[in-house]
Amino acid sequence: MRDFSGGHEWLSINTATVRKQHGQEVPLDRIVDQCAERGIRAISPWRDQVAALGIERLARQLTAHGIGLSGYCRGGFFPAVDAAGLQAALDDNRRAIDEAKLLGAPCVVLVVGALPGALDGRALYKDIGRARGEVRDGIAASLDHAREVGMPLAIEPLHPMQAADRACINTLEQALDLCDELDPERGGMLGVAVDVYHVWWDPKLREQIERAGAERLLAYHVCDWLTPTRDLLSDRGMMGDGVVELKKIRGWVEAAGYRGFSEVEIFSALDWWQRSGEDVLDACIERHRSQV
Amino acid sequence: MRDFSGGHEWLSINTATVRKQHGQEVPLDRIVDQCAERGIRAISPWRDQVAALGIERLARQLTAHGIGLSGYCRGGFFPAVDAAGLQAALDDNRRAIDEAKLLGAPCVVLVVGALPGALDGRALYKDIGRARGEVRDGIAASLDHAREVGMPLAIEPLHPMQAADRACINTLEQALDLCDELDPERGGMLGVAVDVYHVWWDPKLREQIERAGAERLLAYHVCDWLTPTRDLLSDRGMMGDGVVELKKIRGWVEAAGYRGFSEVEIFSALDWWQRSGEDVLDACIERHRSQV
Repeated sequence: MRDFSGGHEWLSINTATVRKQHGQEVPLDRIVDQCAERGIRAISPWRDQVAALGIERLARQLTAHGIGLSGYCRGGFFPAVDAAGLQAALDDNRRAIDEAKLLGAPCVVLVVGALPGALDGRALYKDIGRARGEVRDGIAASLDHAREVGMPLAIEPLHPMQAADRACINTLEQALDLCDELDPERGGMLGVAVDVYHVWWDPKLREQIERAGAERLLAYHVCDWLTPTRDLLSDRGMMGDGVVELKKIRGWVEAAGYRGFSEVEIFSALDWWQRSGEDVLDACIERHRSQV
Repeated sequence: MRDFSGGHEWLSINTATVRKQHGQEVPLDRIVDQCAERGIRAISPWRDQVAALGIERLARQLTAHGIGLSGYCRGGFFPAVDAAGLQAALDDNRRAIDEAKLLGAPCVVLVVGALPGALDGRALYKDIGRARGEVRDGIAASLDHAREVGMPLAIEPLHPMQAADRACINTLEQALDLCDELDPERGGMLGVAVDVYHVWWDPKLREQIERAGAERLLAYHVCDWLTPTRDLLSDRGMMGDGVVELKKIRGWVEAAGYRGFSEVEIFSALDWWQRSGEDVLDACIERHRSQV
């Protein structure tokens, strides 16, 4: 297992972690500068932030700073109630893949989607099996374009508490079953993003990480699970402040062959998003060295 | 699949559903009377309510009304940081089993516990594997007494969002693996309580319900998953108000051989606990007939 205590060369910042500073939205170029000032070598940006800044401008800024990507957030949200909706999702995922290619990302992270409308509190159907079928078909279709351009897709299993509204792939086993179905030859263009927040509780976590292996482990995300957790979406903790066994899980991931970045992704409306970006990034660096 | 549309003979009320009425705690004897007035044939009471009323008094009241139990809430919470704590949990589970026997319950529901201290926001250790081992040992020890007195133990897998603080058994598969380990002969004294709130999201739900079969399916709980869910514990929905496919899941449970009660267990600090008990129970009856 790599020793992170001496530096932060394998730290990446998911820009959601500092997208709000002192409670206010911060533009992506400011976040990139803050990372560059601290010698952070990688980020994972969100498409809405990229669009607001302009993708070419972001590409130039990253090149100037020597900052790479550990992933691109995000594709997915495949289910829909009609053919037009399903096609719109495919078109959007195609664009996400092309954007990721332009930025040199190692993968597009897929938050696959769930019951259409549920995110707005009005599920248009309740059949989660149907949603899972539409996710399967959507990934299969997107994989064709991913293979053409050489951009891996990383299915991110989301915590079961987000099964209704954000992603109906909810365990690593389920994600890997889908990988094996759609990419039995393990061709390198389909794998998983393992976020400890979503999977730490899973009694089959270790065996499924082993099963994934280096070919399927495309991204590794860290934060922590707080007790109590006050919100289902945006009450994640900084590494070390919760109950996740971070070193143990990274040990499993590295034993399976993963050698990429450890990406910090913290949604924290009540705590970290209320602080300065500098303080948050400094905490990420310190905790990366001491806790991850 | 049994037709529930014509009546509510298979409805049971978990008394947590109406333990607060108009926002105020209500004594258990009042709840029992409210159920009796509506022809409800079964309840599942909580130990703290039973202790406050007096168990002999409750037994007499239930007999007078002809009301039975669909379960007894609850045993479990096995993990602890030292031998004294582990023993205290075993002693408490022994008492729960004896109380359930006195009341004629069909099973004791086990909320098995998780990281000691986490429920108070201060986990005393983080090793969920250790907690799972302590749960295994605690159930094994309790099973001896359960067999002596003939009181089945029903392991309730809790939603993964409660893995840190309430129960580290989080899928039906995990619960059944433990049943098979501790009770390979399927002797009838160890099984599961299936609560749709905790398991509805599980991609392996149908196959694990089939695997459980009638011998292992000791209790069936219903409510609904709301979108959005505003609290991890006490924002459950009334059946029909959320996204759970209630009839589909009951179909699976009955196909596996379950013929017991459908027990309504709703923790709802913001909505149902603010209403009158009469209104809540009437809604339970109506939704039992139309939605479950």
